[in-house]
Amino acid sequence: MSRIFTSDNVTPACAPIMAALAAANADAMPSYGGDRYTEELQSVAAAIFETPVAVFPVATGTAANALALAQLCPPFGGVYCHEIAHIATDECGAPEFFTGAKMLGLPSADGKIRIPLLEAAIAHAQGMGVHHVKPAAVSLTQATEWGTVYAPAEVAAIAAVARSHGMSVHMDGARFANALATLGCSPAEATWKCGVDVLSLGATKNGALCAEAVVFFKPELAADFGRRRKRGGHLWSKMRFLSAQLLAYLKDDLWLANARHANAMAALLAAGLREIAGVSVLQSVDANEVFAALPEDTVARLERERFGFYRWPAETGPRTVAIRLVTSFATERGDVAAFLAAAAGRGTVN
Amino acid sequence: MSRIFTSDNVTPACAPIMAALAAANADAMPSYGGDRYTEELQSVAAAIFETPVAVFPVATGTAANALALAQLCPPFGGVYCHEIAHIATDECGAPEFFTGAKMLGLPSADGKIRIPLLEAAIAHAQGMGVHHVKPAAVSLTQATEWGTVYAPAEVAAIAAVARSHGMSVHMDGARFANALATLGCSPAEATWKCGVDVLSLGATKNGALCAEAVVFFKPELAADFGRRRKRGGHLWSKMRFLSAQLLAYLKDDLWLANARHANAMAALLAAGLREIAGVSVLQSVDANEVFAALPEDTVARLERERFGFYRWPAETGPRTVAIRLVTSFATERGDVAAFLAAAAGRGTVN
Amino acid sequence: MSRIFTSDNVTPACAPIMAALAAANADAMPSYGGDRYTEELQSVAAAIFETPVAVFPVATGTAANALALAQLCPPFGGVYCHEIAHIATDECGAPEFFTGAKMLGLPSADGKIRIPLLEAAIAHAQGMGVHHVKPAAVSLTQATEWGTVYAPAEVAAIAAVARSHGMSVHMDGARFANALATLGCSPAEATWKCGVDVLSLGATKNGALCAEAVVFFKPELAADFGRRRKRGGHLWSKMRFLSAQLLAYLKDDLWLANARHANAMAALLAAGLREIAGVSVLQSVDANEVFAALPEDTVARLERERFGFYRWPAETGPRTVAIRLVTSFATERGDVAAFLAAAAGRGTVN
Amino acid sequence: MSRIFTSDNVTPACAPIMAALAAANADAMPSYGGDRYTEELQSVAAAIFETPVAVFPVATGTAANALALAQLCPPFGGVYCHEIAHIATDECGAPEFFTGAKMLGLPSADGKIRIPLLEAAIAHAQGMGVHHVKPAAVSLTQATEWGTVYAPAEVAAIAAVARSHGMSVHMDGARFANALATLGCSPAEATWKCGVDVLSLGATKNGALCAEAVVFFKPELAADFGRRRKRGGHLWSKMRFLSAQLLAYLKDDLWLANARHANAMAALLAAGLREIAGVSVLQSVDANEVFAALPEDTVARLERERFGFYRWPAETGPRTVAIRLVTSFATERGDVAAFLAAAAGRGTVN
Repeated sequence: MSRIFTSDNVTPACAPIMAALAAANADAMPSYGGDRYTEELQSVAAAIFETPVAVFPVATGTAANALALAQLCPPFGGVYCHEIAHIATDECGAPEFFTGAKMLGLPSADGKIRIPLLEAAIAHAQGMGVHHVKPAAVSLTQATEWGTVYAPAEVAAIAAVARSHGMSVHMDGARFANALATLGCSPAEATWKCGVDVLSLGATKNGALCAEAVVFFKPELAADFGRRRKRGGHLWSKMRFLSAQLLAYLKDDLWLANARHANAMAALLAAGLREIAGVSVLQSVDANEVFAALPEDTVARLERERFGFYRWPAETGPRTVAIRLVTSFATERGDVAAFLAAAAGRGTVN
Repeated sequence: MSRIFTSDNVTPACAPIMAALAAANADAMPSYGGDRYTEELQSVAAAIFETPVAVFPVATGTAANALALAQLCPPFGGVYCHEIAHIATDECGAPEFFTGAKMLGLPSADGKIRIPLLEAAIAHAQGMGVHHVKPAAVSLTQATEWGTVYAPAEVAAIAAVARSHGMSVHMDGARFANALATLGCSPAEATWKCGVDVLSLGATKNGALCAEAVVFFKPELAADFGRRRKRGGHLWSKMRFLSAQLLAYLKDDLWLANARHANAMAALLAAGLREIAGVSVLQSVDANEVFAALPEDTVARLERERFGFYRWPAETGPRTVAIRLVTSFATERGDVAAFLAAAAGRGTVN
Repeated sequence: MSRIFTSDNVTPACAPIMAALAAANADAMPSYGGDRYTEELQSVAAAIFETPVAVFPVATGTAANALALAQLCPPFGGVYCHEIAHIATDECGAPEFFTGAKMLGLPSADGKIRIPLLEAAIAHAQGMGVHHVKPAAVSLTQATEWGTVYAPAEVAAIAAVARSHGMSVHMDGARFANALATLGCSPAEATWKCGVDVLSLGATKNGALCAEAVVFFKPELAADFGRRRKRGGHLWSKMRFLSAQLLAYLKDDLWLANARHANAMAALLAAGLREIAGVSVLQSVDANEVFAALPEDTVARLERERFGFYRWPAETGPRTVAIRLVTSFATERGDVAAFLAAAAGRGTVN
Repeated sequence: MSRIFTSDNVTPACAPIMAALAAANADAMPSYGGDRYTEELQSVAAAIFETPVAVFPVATGTAANALALAQLCPPFGGVYCHEIAHIATDECGAPEFFTGAKMLGLPSADGKIRIPLLEAAIAHAQGMGVHHVKPAAVSLTQATEWGTVYAPAEVAAIAAVARSHGMSVHMDGARFANALATLGCSPAEATWKCGVDVLSLGATKNGALCAEAVVFFKPELAADFGRRRKRGGHLWSKMRFLSAQLLAYLKDDLWLANARHANAMAALLAAGLREIAGVSVLQSVDANEVFAALPEDTVARLERERFGFYRWPAETGPRTVAIRLVTSFATERGDVAAFLAAAAGRGTVN
């Protein structure tokens, strides 16, 4: 039982991934990615995405994003993203460090990039000539920072704008599996078929110890990416241990099974919250995050009772506070029930 | 049985470290280093080094080196190191990327920095004023790239030069445990007591999956290092899995036990090679690396027999080739015997 | 006569500065700032600012800003500025390139930083810990991008916020002389006495060919700045030619005389515009820039008549367009009269 | 009269360039390179080099080199140059700052890159894979740091090696006019016809106040270079003043006339030195630099008599010291005679 809804990264690793690590821990094996796990990962990913891919495992989502963008964007470039995208606000400047470029945030209430704002920003940049960074890439977060999910058609429309200006499209998929589980489409339909060039595919929040993958859908875009990764200190000598996690993650639909469970727990949480008087759910709950406005004293009480969550900056009514709740593969029905009971003031279960 | 002497990073992880990972894999736990393993690591390291330390786990040695140097060296600075130091030649520019500074290589036959060359280089830089990067740090590799080990007095003499010019001292300890096992002194005597400010403490080559630690012996030197690590994409969300490896590594002298075994295997290998006619051992075998000159056709035969090692650039006699052999915690006596038998032309064991 | 109100950087250089260049063009002289002009500049600037200063001439305002901020801000830092500050939007990422840091824009209608927004932004950053860049500096533009001027008390209040969080204060003084001419206070009162640590002192827009100075009011803040400038390619070998411009600029109040003239021309322009039906002046005209809303067809006609100015993004009424008009030391009364006549539809003068 | 042979950058500007500045100082003119001087410079340079070029004026040689290399070399790349090339040792890390790459120095006695060493270094890099920076460019200095001049055939041979590995060729032409005057060939023959992609064309040392040009011989290589220059703070608002210098420099063979004079003065100096007992000239005097070994007490005496020159690190005989003497467009025959008389111990002229 856990009262912690702070983030999906407070979780341990799931059993199949731990088993995969143990299985990979035998014999001497070529280092730096010359091992058989890393090799197999390429073909497994290509099969899942139904296209040739170049896959580069790294240990953190920040590394995946920053390295991917550096490959797409010159140092005098600009990357358009949502104004609260992780790359813009939560990575201590890592994307700027690796790219040399600027992250250019666009506002919206639901975490999705709005096309008119994107087009206006690009037009402004182009009018400024050399005085402004060059529009180079768009980065979408899937699921978004507000727990919403882009439909493939929405991604395609944004990608079309990017393409028309010679720009690339990156998807920050820290919670890609959660989005995919909701969309019900194929991984290909959710990515390259709607215009995504590079995906940061997250596994850590959804069951791994420490594994993300940069997935290039046009392998020619990946030229020299290996040197970029090494220069960032992100090339593991014992790469087998990263690749084995990702293999286990993608095999037998483990990633989707974990994500479906997390999403179901979020849906349960949202449904329960909607039934509590004075509580409102603030966004469409498309993945594994619930944003809700609760009375201030309820929130304070939940904190005293040691439930874990963040207060979230959002406009709410008087004497109410917005909070973020994140579920995961490890969330249990009892965890949700306990939270709802406490939120409703019915006392807590344990 | 393994025929692979290519590097100590071809090894799996050792059993106590795998067990520690499994033990850490329970319950929700604060992310980004707020967990109890990371906390305990600070006190365990302080006890082992007999001084307050600030310890920052990262996943690769390149990250540890590049981040540590960035903390010591301004972007207009210079870092003096051996001309074949890993930071100078094998990290694809990572130290330059993270520091903005220049790596300034000094030659010597045995991998150690020679004081007269260091002093001359610093004097030259100072004479050049703003046209030259500012002498900012010295980086020693312990054990060196040639498998030799600095005595504490040698480190102290170099550190005294650095100190007299207001420079800092970094030690690249990718094989620090191997050096320490040979020196027989305390960790404190091998580091801060002889003037080392920051140590990149390696564990990956000596039994971990993926764990290194940046150890600051003057915690005030570590100010804001956490942001630097995050900006490099090197802050793990599930930090417990890095810290647990390092805890297991340092506890019960596991690091020294592993290193002693690796060193003993290297000594066995060197002793055996010295007895083979036409073979010479090129450097003092102080740790777990053996450099030897062998007849060219012997080397070619060993390669055909699928022994793993690198040909190494070194001046040798006519029709001889220098090679590097690296042993590890996982090397078995039979592995050494097999290699020696093959090198001697006595046939191979399996 | 000139119809060009596009910017004050379309101007030639003023006569006293050309004369100073010619005078400096004699004899061999030590290079890289060892000349007597550069030496004299230090003492002249110290006298004018009534405090010891360290002055570093450079050729462009972008270089002055980017280098100054790099001295104040670590690579994992953040610089708070107005959201349309030159450093945030018009320098193609130069401040990010030199600092490694992020420019964090704050909105306001008149180009000035608002304290509640600044405090909220700093508080947010601090709450985010290592995930967010570290609040490191505030950069004020004087005069602002909207042609307004901070009173010393306004600067002091912002500086007090910065100081209370251990942050530094930079002033982008591309049009500092224009602001100073309006304020009527001493250079000291407008800068270090109200908390400014470093000033980018512009001369190019106000009469020089190519000269700006980075002025440190705490010389100890300037440590190693010379190397930073060299590393940016901004150290002139024939430095005398930069320093001579700045000396002439500061001597005999040339900078103030030029600025007073430019400001008077802007005041004349604004007064005339206010008298034209359908035209409104959008901001307080504190320096040498006038922002005005004009009927769309008037603007189009002025453009056809080859008056030079920018259309400016601002909210205006229906069928009106905002424009920016910049005056300079070289603007003549007849230039203003001609523009006003044309704007009023009275026909143009020549 | 001048006793200063320290460098050719201690000189003032020559009269035709000062006249050109004065002539350009009239009227309002579009800023940032939209002026007619900058436009004319493109066509004048194209005519002189007999091919379409893209020319970008900047104020310093360090800026020209660093920006040019940044255009040729990815951040994970390597630039091969002579070990004492200006880019490797005298620019405080500017090339590394702008490129992100490593400068890789190759030794030789005369300042020229030796093909076998270049090939070996490239082969080593390629053998190292992602652990080593990627061979990206070769940078030749013309004239070299030892005052020698590459023949076009020598350049062509080096360029062929570069080309065969997909690398670019940069020429640091801080003293290109001096080399060209000696070679007697056309500017085209000395550059793109023998494989140079980009030239840093110096004017400052040879008569300008502050003007260098980055000249791309394949204009398509210059894509987005304008943004790179802006991001470095090297885009002048009043660009006319840079372009006017370069126009005057290239017109009427001013650059060659100045260079021929400087070279003639160096030849005179060398000839005179060779006749003094105990003095030897150390390198072929191909341009405007003379390296000579003199008795230690002679050198000390010359210093006491306030002749300006550098002691130079070079192997010489016992009790002798190597010095560098640089002549320029401004050197007079009397200056040379005075130095020779003093060196010969015949007393000095004034």
